[in-house]
Amino acid sequence: MREIFKQEMQELGESLVTMAGHVATAIEQAATALKVADLTLAEQVIDADNAIDALENKIDDLGISLLARQAPVATDLRVVVSGLQLSATLERMGDLARHLAYVARGRYPEPAVSGPMKDILDKMGAQATKVGTQVHQLLETRDMNLAAAVEQEDEILDALHRDSFQVVLDDSQELTRQEIVDSVLLGRYLERFGDHGVSVARRISYLVTGDTSNAVRVPNESGPSGEAR
Amino acid sequence: MREIFKQEMQELGESLVTMAGHVATAIEQAATALKVADLTLAEQVIDADNAIDALENKIDDLGISLLARQAPVATDLRVVVSGLQLSATLERMGDLARHLAYVARGRYPEPAVSGPMKDILDKMGAQATKVGTQVHQLLETRDMNLAAAVEQEDEILDALHRDSFQVVLDDSQELTRQEIVDSVLLGRYLERFGDHGVSVARRISYLVTGDTSNAVRVPNESGPSGEAR
Repeated sequence: MREIFKQEMQELGESLVTMAGHVATAIEQAATALKVADLTLAEQVIDADNAIDALENKIDDLGISLLARQAPVATDLRVVVSGLQLSATLERMGDLARHLAYVARGRYPEPAVSGPMKDILDKMGAQATKVGTQVHQLLETRDMNLAAAVEQEDEILDALHRDSFQVVLDDSQELTRQEIVDSVLLGRYLERFGDHGVSVARRISYLVTGDTSNAVRVPNESGPSGEAR
Repeated sequence: MREIFKQEMQELGESLVTMAGHVATAIEQAATALKVADLTLAEQVIDADNAIDALENKIDDLGISLLARQAPVATDLRVVVSGLQLSATLERMGDLARHLAYVARGRYPEPAVSGPMKDILDKMGAQATKVGTQVHQLLETRDMNLAAAVEQEDEILDALHRDSFQVVLDDSQELTRQEIVDSVLLGRYLERFGDHGVSVARRISYLVTGDTSNAVRVPNESGPSGEAR
C-alpha cells in the first residue's frame, strides 16, 4: 500500500513537471509566433493545448484517486491538494499561450502590431517565456531561488504592461483600431500569464518552506490603465 | 465523529452559498456603478472583495481539514474537492467585479464609455448580473434548471461581447483611445465572469447528476476579434 502510495505521489509530481514543460514550450512558441508572424508555430501552440488539458485531467484523476484510496494527511495531503490547484493554474497558463497564438494566426501574414507597441509586446513575450521556463525548472528542482526569480521577472512584465498603456493611450502613436484592440488583449494575456506563474511559485514556496507569509493566490494583478489600486 | 462530519460538510456548503451571494452582489453593484458612474457603489465593491477572499480562505481551510480528519470517499470526497475548486472560481468572479469597479472609479465622474459601446457594455453588465444571481441561486437550491439558465445567459453575454468588437473596430464610431482600451478590458472582464459562471454551473451539474458529458472546465471562451476558434 505504502509503496503504491509513494509511486503515485511521484507520478503526480512528474505529471506536473511534464505539464509545466508543455506550458513553457507553448509560451515560448506563442511569443515567437507573435514576434515573427509565424503561422506554423501559432498553429502548433493551438494544437498542443489539448495535451496540456489532458494532463490536467490526468493529474486531477490521480489526485482524487490518491485522496480516496490513501487518505493522505499532513504534508502528503498538502502536496496532493496543491497538485490539483497547480494543474488548474498551469492549464490556465496554457490557455493564455493559446490566446496569443490565436492573435498571431488571425493577423498572419502581418505581425499583430507594429512600431513601439510591437517592441513592448515582444519584450513582454520574452519575459513571459522566462517565467514559463522558470516555473518548469522550479517544479522540477524545487530550487527556491527560482521562486524568487519568477517574482522578479513578473515585476518586469508588469512594468512593461504599464508602459504598453502609455503607448496605446498616446494619440500621437499611429495605431489602427485593430492594433489597439490587439495590444490591450495581448498585454492582458501576457500579464496574466506572469501572475499565474507567481501563483505557482508561491504555492511551491509554501509547500517547500511551509511559510505562508506570501499569500498563495494570484498577486499584484496590474489592471486597466489609470486606476490606482 | 459522523455528526461533526455532517456539520462540517453543511458548513462548507453554506459558506459557498454565502460566497456566491457576495459575488452576485458585487457584480450587480459593479455593473450599476459602471452604468450610472456611481463612485460610492464602485468603492463598495472594491472594499467588499476582502470578504470574498476571506470566505475563499475559510472554505479552503475547512475543506482541507475535512480531508485530513475525515478522509471522505465517493460522493463526499467529490463534494469537498469541488468545494475547493468552486471557491477558487468564485474568488476569481469577485476579482472581475472588482476590476469593473476600478474602471468605474477611475473614470468618475464621467461614465467609462459613451454612445453605442456604452449600450452594449450596459447590456453585458446586466447579463453578467443575471449569471451572478443564478449562480447564487443554483448553489442554494441545486435546481438544475438554473444550471441550464446560466449557460443560456452566458451565450447572450458572448454574443454581446462579439458585438462589442464590431463597434470598437468600426472607425466611424467616435471613441477616444481611453474608451477603446476600457471597452476591450470591460468586455473581457464581463465575458470571463460569464465563463466562470458556466464553470460553476457545470461543476454543480456534475455533482448533482454525475454526468460528465459537459466538461467541468471554463468553456467557450470567446477571444480576440477576428479569430476563428
